[in-house]
Amino acid sequence: MKVLADLCIIPFTENLSVSKYVAICEKIFKDAGLKTKLHSYGTDIEGEWDDVFGAIKKCHEVLHNEGVLRISSELRFGTRTDKEQSMEDKIRSVEEKLK
Amino acid sequence: MKVLADLCIIPFTENLSVSKYVAICEKIFKDAGLKTKLHSYGTDIEGEWDDVFGAIKKCHEVLHNEGVLRISSELRFGTRTDKEQSMEDKIRSVEEKLK
Amino acid sequence: MKVLADLCIIPFTENLSVSKYVAICEKIFKDAGLKTKLHSYGTDIEGEWDDVFGAIKKCHEVLHNEGVLRISSELRFGTRTDKEQSMEDKIRSVEEKLK
Amino acid sequence: MKVLADLCIIPFTENLSVSKYVAICEKIFKDAGLKTKLHSYGTDIEGEWDDVFGAIKKCHEVLHNEGVLRISSELRFGTRTDKEQSMEDKIRSVEEKLK
Repeated sequence: MKVLADLCIIPFTENLSVSKYVAICEKIFKDAGLKTKLHSYGTDIEGEWDDVFGAIKKCHEVLHNEGVLRISSELRFGTRTDKEQSMEDKIRSVEEKLK
Repeated sequence: MKVLADLCIIPFTENLSVSKYVAICEKIFKDAGLKTKLHSYGTDIEGEWDDVFGAIKKCHEVLHNEGVLRISSELRFGTRTDKEQSMEDKIRSVEEKLK
Repeated sequence: MKVLADLCIIPFTENLSVSKYVAICEKIFKDAGLKTKLHSYGTDIEGEWDDVFGAIKKCHEVLHNEGVLRISSELRFGTRTDKEQSMEDKIRSVEEKLK
Repeated sequence: MKVLADLCIIPFTENLSVSKYVAICEKIFKDAGLKTKLHSYGTDIEGEWDDVFGAIKKCHEVLHNEGVLRISSELRFGTRTDKEQSMEDKIRSVEEKLK
């Protein structure tokens, strides 16, 4: 089962900037061989269900190991059985209607 | 790793009502032995990470097997290493401040 | 236009506990005359669109005035024109299918 | 008060594709003079609070006028008082840490 997801991870730290932790997660997704695209309020991820959710679990584990005591994440994730649809397909589909 | 989560699952169907599918997911969570609490815009879930995410995967699989061609879910999920905190603890903590 | 919403507000503070700030928002919603129900990962809110979103704006304003420098919120919100549906209706609709 | 937001709007229709409706919202955001960036699971939006939320309200109104009977949206939105931060700043901040 393929999934398209969009993860927004919020580590509770003293620092107002969370980009360091988002970068750690980016590396975890790349190491897992997942296709990702960073955007301004999260990271879009495409892959097999178990790979995507395995990497998300690793994000929480690694951030806790880095000393983050609390994490709150928010994930959008979609599956469909009528057709394959990539991250680019979804954007293209909207952009065609905007022409 | 324990997780508190809140799942809002949206099956794309011809029907405006999705309660039938939410009920199916409730049963999946109960069968998995997870603690859950239905609210007006989702279901709060408490348990071990793998149990919670295993059950969520099953929700997508079972709904697709029921003929739903597309599903979009949204999940909030939090982990913390400083202390154990149950679903009830979180509510109690706010209610005490409201007194 | 009536809306059912579910707000999860995350203030970036040095403190791991956010219940103090959730309690402030609860009071803002009550003062605005909105129907709310606290759950373990947010607050369900029911009311007219402008009232609900006006109160949410006030939450951000008041928390910033309390010294919170950064806030990240997440909101689910639904509208429908086929029928009126309260927060309780949604839960009842699922519970009937669980019997 | 400036806000960075990320909207995922789900119209309940018979059609599995929602790109037509996402395109309508894109036009609403453009007409409102808002900076937006479409991604694979939503649209990032930057602007003044009232402009952003006014446009989001219009999205729901216009989609209902187009015959959509039920809409469920999900929004991430952040405000900060310590500094101005654009959509591009957030991405740049992560990318610098990935070098």
